[in-house]
Amino acid sequence: MSLAIVGSLAFDTIETPEVRKERIVGGSCTYCSLAASYFTSPKIVGVVGEDFPPETVALFKRRKIDIQGLEFAKGKTFFWEGRYGHDPNHRTTLKLEMNVFADFKPQIPPSYKDAEILFLANIDPKLQEDILHRFKDPKWVAMDTINHWIKTKKEALLRVLKGCNLFFCNEEEAKLLTDEVNLIRAGKKLMEMGPPLIAIKKGEHGALIVGKEFVFGVLAHPCEDVVDPTGAGDCFAGGFLGYLDSLKKVEEKDWRRAAVYGSVMASFAIEDFGIDRFKSLKLSEVKKRFLEFRKSVSF
Amino acid sequence: MSLAIVGSLAFDTIETPEVRKERIVGGSCTYCSLAASYFTSPKIVGVVGEDFPPETVALFKRRKIDIQGLEFAKGKTFFWEGRYGHDPNHRTTLKLEMNVFADFKPQIPPSYKDAEILFLANIDPKLQEDILHRFKDPKWVAMDTINHWIKTKKEALLRVLKGCNLFFCNEEEAKLLTDEVNLIRAGKKLMEMGPPLIAIKKGEHGALIVGKEFVFGVLAHPCEDVVDPTGAGDCFAGGFLGYLDSLKKVEEKDWRRAAVYGSVMASFAIEDFGIDRFKSLKLSEVKKRFLEFRKSVSF
Repeated sequence: MSLAIVGSLAFDTIETPEVRKERIVGGSCTYCSLAASYFTSPKIVGVVGEDFPPETVALFKRRKIDIQGLEFAKGKTFFWEGRYGHDPNHRTTLKLEMNVFADFKPQIPPSYKDAEILFLANIDPKLQEDILHRFKDPKWVAMDTINHWIKTKKEALLRVLKGCNLFFCNEEEAKLLTDEVNLIRAGKKLMEMGPPLIAIKKGEHGALIVGKEFVFGVLAHPCEDVVDPTGAGDCFAGGFLGYLDSLKKVEEKDWRRAAVYGSVMASFAIEDFGIDRFKSLKLSEVKKRFLEFRKSVSF
Repeated sequence: MSLAIVGSLAFDTIETPEVRKERIVGGSCTYCSLAASYFTSPKIVGVVGEDFPPETVALFKRRKIDIQGLEFAKGKTFFWEGRYGHDPNHRTTLKLEMNVFADFKPQIPPSYKDAEILFLANIDPKLQEDILHRFKDPKWVAMDTINHWIKTKKEALLRVLKGCNLFFCNEEEAKLLTDEVNLIRAGKKLMEMGPPLIAIKKGEHGALIVGKEFVFGVLAHPCEDVVDPTGAGDCFAGGFLGYLDSLKKVEEKDWRRAAVYGSVMASFAIEDFGIDRFKSLKLSEVKKRFLEFRKSVSF
């Protein structure tokens, strides 16, 4: 198969109770494609400004990420500033500068159009909608979003959702979209909005996958030192979709395996700031943690 | 082995957003012993008043719960009133009447004193301490508590904790006792306070078991309709300890199995009000759900 990922490439300024990191590379597309690159060669669509570090582009290339759809525009890269509380599950957005994303008219390279899996990572739902229509007929369309779009662009978001096969959201977003506190009921309500498969990410509590005839949970890898939770959700989606993309045929167990790979990739992301963990992460480490996961749940 | 359970037997008035149930039978000892009775014949220590329903005593006997240590006192049974919000993980205590528990001087039947597992279910830590010293030399001492005692009787609670091998607490209590938001770090800090094994209950997110050389998570059985969450934690401990008590020798995998049985018993408790689910619950249903659990985590 082949996986195309559309999303943001960004500079993030991150404050945790311990430290402040200025303008480190982040963005939903960045995290997701790096995580997916351990399973497949994802094709990315996005835009960066003149200030985007060539080292990151080199890292993409090294990880066999296809950057034909990455536009290098005049101006500054998208910027996000956020603060995490003592509880890393809670964060506040302090600043958001669209910069080159404001006028982004994505060009989809011809070689991308046959992608069988299209992931609309977190980004303005109007842009997600626009891009969705420019792909031929992907077998699988997945999307992610954040509270901000649920609150400000719900209609566009619901239109995109309708055309999706798989929706990634976190607990808070699932509750906000469905007005349900029970996550299984929330998952079923989300299914009624379109996608037959819902992946609800729950941070340290793992994730819940809700489908038509099954509900299953996946744990989070136990982590004592959450250095930077940014991008964990994008890496979950990247591991999930990257693994799916590596298969010839998807069987029932593969959904669980995809979720475990998602959880594994998220667990690596939070061990260091920004994308730093991916600079040294080896495939053997990914496989090792996957096997540890399997051992840890057997009884 | 043999398991003795000390805790409360109570009337609970429970308000959920949908319904109010007046004076239904509850209490930590009640829930815990019923859950444990699917694996062993627990011996209970507690006190009830003249108003305690004979049907519940009959249920105890039917489930082969040893009630030699159950005192029938003059006066009224312990009473608790609480309200659950839309999120069943949040509850408020509205009323607490100690009644016969106020002057309870527990008599430990001679046949109880050799119990190999002693569970000090949630109750005044001073009473837990008093009882702990009246058992010979149990191989395993486990305890549970609630926020109320952490806030009002912390010193006594810490003394009991020091003499324990296994501490059951929920997420909120673990954080309150250790001032840690990361549950693995909280678990390790709790270990420094005495018990080498910590079981942190997380409601719908399952539980986390923290030991010297391992951390493992157990999921909660997916439940769409949480009718009444009261007693879920007590049933978790009951399933956990009841299963342990049924073994001749405890091996590493048994900790995981015990946690899964805990999770299974908790999942039944919340399906109906009070102890109603246990009136009809069959061992075959317990075993079936255990096997479903195993299937649901394999990948």
